[in-house]
Amino acid sequence: MNGAQSLIRTLVDAGVDVCFANPGTSEMHFVAALDTVPEMRGVLGLFEGVVTGAADGYARIADKPAATLLHLGPGLGNGLANLHNARRAGTPIVNVIGDHATYHKRYDAPLESDIEALAGWLNGWVRHSKSTADVGADAAAAVAAAQDAPGRVATLVLPADVSWGDGGQTCAPVPPRTAKPVGETTVKAIAEILRTGEPVALLIGGRACREAGLRATSRIAAATGAKPFVETFPARLERGAGLPDIERLGYLAEQVSYQLTGIKHVIVAGTRAPVSFFAYPGKPSDLVPEGAQVHVLAEADQDVAGALADLAALVAPDTEPQLAEAARPALPSGPLTPQNWVDVIGALLPERAIIADESNTSGLLLPAATAGAPRHDVLTLTGGAIGYGLPVATGAAVAAPDRPVIGLQADGSALYTISALWTQARENLDVTTVLLNNRAYAILRMELQRVGAEGSGPKANELLDLSGPDLDFVRISEGLGVPATRATTAEELAEQFSRALAEPGPHLIDAHVPPLL
Amino acid sequence: MNGAQSLIRTLVDAGVDVCFANPGTSEMHFVAALDTVPEMRGVLGLFEGVVTGAADGYARIADKPAATLLHLGPGLGNGLANLHNARRAGTPIVNVIGDHATYHKRYDAPLESDIEALAGWLNGWVRHSKSTADVGADAAAAVAAAQDAPGRVATLVLPADVSWGDGGQTCAPVPPRTAKPVGETTVKAIAEILRTGEPVALLIGGRACREAGLRATSRIAAATGAKPFVETFPARLERGAGLPDIERLGYLAEQVSYQLTGIKHVIVAGTRAPVSFFAYPGKPSDLVPEGAQVHVLAEADQDVAGALADLAALVAPDTEPQLAEAARPALPSGPLTPQNWVDVIGALLPERAIIADESNTSGLLLPAATAGAPRHDVLTLTGGAIGYGLPVATGAAVAAPDRPVIGLQADGSALYTISALWTQARENLDVTTVLLNNRAYAILRMELQRVGAEGSGPKANELLDLSGPDLDFVRISEGLGVPATRATTAEELAEQFSRALAEPGPHLIDAHVPPLL
Repeated sequence: MNGAQSLIRTLVDAGVDVCFANPGTSEMHFVAALDTVPEMRGVLGLFEGVVTGAADGYARIADKPAATLLHLGPGLGNGLANLHNARRAGTPIVNVIGDHATYHKRYDAPLESDIEALAGWLNGWVRHSKSTADVGADAAAAVAAAQDAPGRVATLVLPADVSWGDGGQTCAPVPPRTAKPVGETTVKAIAEILRTGEPVALLIGGRACREAGLRATSRIAAATGAKPFVETFPARLERGAGLPDIERLGYLAEQVSYQLTGIKHVIVAGTRAPVSFFAYPGKPSDLVPEGAQVHVLAEADQDVAGALADLAALVAPDTEPQLAEAARPALPSGPLTPQNWVDVIGALLPERAIIADESNTSGLLLPAATAGAPRHDVLTLTGGAIGYGLPVATGAAVAAPDRPVIGLQADGSALYTISALWTQARENLDVTTVLLNNRAYAILRMELQRVGAEGSGPKANELLDLSGPDLDFVRISEGLGVPATRATTAEELAEQFSRALAEPGPHLIDAHVPPLL
Repeated sequence: MNGAQSLIRTLVDAGVDVCFANPGTSEMHFVAALDTVPEMRGVLGLFEGVVTGAADGYARIADKPAATLLHLGPGLGNGLANLHNARRAGTPIVNVIGDHATYHKRYDAPLESDIEALAGWLNGWVRHSKSTADVGADAAAAVAAAQDAPGRVATLVLPADVSWGDGGQTCAPVPPRTAKPVGETTVKAIAEILRTGEPVALLIGGRACREAGLRATSRIAAATGAKPFVETFPARLERGAGLPDIERLGYLAEQVSYQLTGIKHVIVAGTRAPVSFFAYPGKPSDLVPEGAQVHVLAEADQDVAGALADLAALVAPDTEPQLAEAARPALPSGPLTPQNWVDVIGALLPERAIIADESNTSGLLLPAATAGAPRHDVLTLTGGAIGYGLPVATGAAVAAPDRPVIGLQADGSALYTISALWTQARENLDVTTVLLNNRAYAILRMELQRVGAEGSGPKANELLDLSGPDLDFVRISEGLGVPATRATTAEELAEQFSRALAEPGPHLIDAHVPPLL
């Protein structure tokens, strides 16, 4: 057994049986070894950002890591942006980065670089496999490290000779560090704050955004009057009829200021106190209202849902959660607008859908339109590095082949990782992408005003404009193997969306929705 | 004057008047400032790898740096692969990376990361601008650092508040470190080696690949019997009728072993002794023949062409260089093959063309077919990070609007940075891309065999296969705004290539060339 074979066998034994890959020469023994471990599924991406984003989307839905396979430093470099998003999401990922043979590194061949420097940027776990005999143990350690609560990016650098050498040994799975319980003292202290009668905001994130955490949060809010909020960009939020519909904290500082008006205590569970996404001249970075206190119920690496349940047992023992009723918008008509396209989604969202949301400015009105739709998961852009949507939808569909995946995708962001569509076609994934085409970096047009940039004129506006030439996403999608249609009215979007959902395999709808602003 | 304005004004005063940009919120003041400095041209890329590759291509042709504008750590991450290629090319680039406002960093907002860690990976020059008053001086230092011989990537991190703050001051240009002369002792010592009569290889790279260095090399070879070679992947190689046609060292170790058979001395000038691109089991990494000695005439940061001229004056005072005669292949016919497509290029290459070559396996026969074509420049994949071709062609066309740019582009590599086509359309650049579509990562199929990977089978082959679905590059290109046609015969390719060259603006030809192997 060579090193690559021991690596893949160990991964599979630890439950990691999908590998999103964009290999090169230094990874050829890993590629060859796939044929010796039939349980491992290899999924090809044509760009590393697709690979890493898919691994993120996969794990958010499967609740276990996928592996990636990337080619040396530049390959990892191309994958970093979506790994940054995964880091912010607390997503477990096992990166396998091929490196030159150990004895080859000193020659500084063209692709030589400091891979650890890039991997270290992710603040996760990094190990360089030193010998073939150790690869199995290194792999088991990587899987455990990735799954240490709440989850992180674990990177294993695999030199080519360590991979091709004989003497590989598989290693039994290593248990990860589970989420630490929150102490009774902390829960009781938070309960006391809720009993003061002062205005409280309860901000939840991470694992609290699943059903158990949402129900406990809703009960606490209903019993105490605390205002509950979900963090601005949750990794995975369960929503829809039968679940509590808890408002997300806004993206804009102005929204958050409004949402937290009058609050005296901010209780955080599984997330951090709110900060502005960017700095703006003369505006605060810290969005906790002046004079308000922040109290931590649970850190991200703790058992957040358990802590919320304990807190609910103290302060809301007899209170039921407030659940969203089944309700959908009526099917709208007329030319597409920022309002009616979300109504189409709300009206037609299928059962058990997964929404990969990178709709950006076009999606501002989405949450209200889907609150009473059938139960679904929403995945969001946790780290702000755009180009996450199409890959994450791809990975989510690999994780849940029995569920419809809906990608809501801004045009500008789509171009970063557009070849994810090809992987969707190749794997025949049931992903419906609604491409929100407003022909601009619309969010930057807004931001140009918000930062108070003086003197901007035609040259500035040109850098935020995606027309001239217009992007024809129907042709791009078809060129990548995904059938596509164009919608300019709500009726067309509804008809095309329904048809795409009814047919197996991926589809794209180029929806011409004018900018919100 | 704010910091951004002082930055752009200083760049322009130092001769940096093109900025390839993919901005975000933290760069909005830079974007706005473009309207206050009319001499600076902003060119939008829809992905950072396009931006950095275009800056590389621009500088290889303009012989001066362009600026980039990238958004925080993830934006730099997306640009790293092509910056790696630029580093290996010795290309001067001034990276401007927007960062959060200085006071905002401690809040660890979603896009926060260690930008310096990524920039440091490039082994170039890095500075974090600390105050608005310093930005001009920092920019002048960055331009100089980028141009220190032989050229490198200089990264200036620009916090948003430093950019928007008042009190910016322009700074006069700072002279870069010019190439150091090679001492007479060294030149004489190399001359002695050439006079021993023992078999010598003279391997040139970097600046020696321009006319002066090539002519001196040819004279030395003709007078002494040394075998001259150009490094495997030159940043910019001048070629064609009227110039010496010096063979490039091969990509495969086997080729190099053949080329250097019997050599006792390897003289290197502006490059390093040959090493294998990758390691292969049981094969050497060091490609210098056993027992041969390596002698350095000039390091990359020295005046390589001057050293070669001095050497030629010593050993070949009365010898003329051997120049390629004007000669073109006949126009071929029949279904496209790895031979006849290069004959079409050789037959029709226009005057003063720039070839951005990422043809990979499809281009093995290209050099012979173009040796006697009109004088042209060839840009190659210096760092091995694929996805360089379309962006580099884009940047080269910005640098030389009066010259035809020919992109010879492998299919797999094209997908990494495909949106470069959109920038070509937007800027109406005269780029003709010949997309060599063999429906595979053909080079990896070859490498899978070369590394001796045992046990590979259908799963391995599937990861190297780009069919299922086939990529339709005509639609992809049209979707990105570049008119495209498909060629399956040599006659079609010749007709379409001629037409594309005759029409202004970008074109793409999807050339279905079967794999070489």
